[in-house]
Amino acid sequence: MQVQQGTVHIEQHGIDGFPVNHGIRFCIAATRQYTTAHHGVQSQESPLSKPKVLHSREVARTRLFRVEEMGLRFSNGVERTYERLVGFNTGHAAVMVLPLLDDQRFVMIEEYAAGTEDYQLSLPKGLVEPGESLLEGANRELMEEAGYGAHKLELLTELSLSPNYMSHRMQVVVARDLYEMRLEGDEPEPLGVHVFHFDQLPELVQRPDFTEARAMVALYMARDLLRSPQGDVQSTI
Amino acid sequence: MQVQQGTVHIEQHGIDGFPVNHGIRFCIAATRQYTTAHHGVQSQESPLSKPKVLHSREVARTRLFRVEEMGLRFSNGVERTYERLVGFNTGHAAVMVLPLLDDQRFVMIEEYAAGTEDYQLSLPKGLVEPGESLLEGANRELMEEAGYGAHKLELLTELSLSPNYMSHRMQVVVARDLYEMRLEGDEPEPLGVHVFHFDQLPELVQRPDFTEARAMVALYMARDLLRSPQGDVQSTI
Repeated sequence: MQVQQGTVHIEQHGIDGFPVNHGIRFCIAATRQYTTAHHGVQSQESPLSKPKVLHSREVARTRLFRVEEMGLRFSNGVERTYERLVGFNTGHAAVMVLPLLDDQRFVMIEEYAAGTEDYQLSLPKGLVEPGESLLEGANRELMEEAGYGAHKLELLTELSLSPNYMSHRMQVVVARDLYEMRLEGDEPEPLGVHVFHFDQLPELVQRPDFTEARAMVALYMARDLLRSPQGDVQSTI
Repeated sequence: MQVQQGTVHIEQHGIDGFPVNHGIRFCIAATRQYTTAHHGVQSQESPLSKPKVLHSREVARTRLFRVEEMGLRFSNGVERTYERLVGFNTGHAAVMVLPLLDDQRFVMIEEYAAGTEDYQLSLPKGLVEPGESLLEGANRELMEEAGYGAHKLELLTELSLSPNYMSHRMQVVVARDLYEMRLEGDEPEPLGVHVFHFDQLPELVQRPDFTEARAMVALYMARDLLRSPQGDVQSTI
């Protein structure tokens, strides 16, 4: 569904720097691909020569899931057959949104999770639709699931689900300068919307109805950035 | 493979309390199911009446994956058909291990990830084998993948993968009082073993070869517990 109201300010991250902007900037994801130094204090030899793909074939396909079998030969000559989930969820980019009301409070949604068969807290998320940019898709999901739009959307990080078994990756976006705005989505029932304070994070991650690792990472990462000494300096600019 | 050396001290967590022990205790998981209070600062009505399962059937099964289709009727009468991944990885309990060398340093492994097709940093993990307890399985995986055994193993938390689409859950165990001990596992090549300091966590989560959300949560959660004021008090007992 198209955005009907509100101006979206999308941060453009370049290689050389980040736009001048008030408040904390979330720029981890933009630096990811340029971070190559290894910081291990102590290392053994790393097996960095990638195995050769001997064959790959689809072994199952359903409406949402596709399973691939892959024959690999490792650099030491050992051959193994792997199965992995590919193209989970139709192949569109997946995005998760962390909506910040201010530097202390964030919004979570509560919805029925068919996988774990209970109501779970999470962050708004979904698939970017054809013709949408990543941040436009993030803003639409935010409006559909939480009833907020955001004037500022910034990429925080990219997370994998289970890198050994799944190709799936999810982009995590921080949304700020929120305004009330609800779009009708494809949810079967209205989602619960809850506001928490970052001070509640240690209790929150203990709750039986909050178990999703990717949403937890988004919260820990944003909290650390907001509370880092560097962040404090930036926020006073 | 059986443990050949070293004494495993397994913490028994009860409902009423935790064993007296030196150092920080990781006891989040044990309190999870008893935490029911909601801490939302602001809440809308929560949709807590679970949908009714109208039907469910298996739509695909491979060596590792099983996909189920489920018809649901929500409390407002809306009906939807869902697909979810169930019994991922043969249904054995999955366990991830965070090995601590001390209160500052932890061990990570580096292995080829067939899902993302690159070498990735992660924590030792695997499936608990028949006849093993969760913590025994955690110790065996630690020996096979990282070359350490642990005298102390404690449950940290339980994480889900993608609760909307997958039933999969993983237990996260903290391993301490480590000793060198390698068991032969089923890895096709030796894994890289790296030691990091919790001060490196902000850089670590930016690395393109560390993307797994569940391992990140384990690190953030343990670091917060080790550095919490309460932790400082406990560690001086």
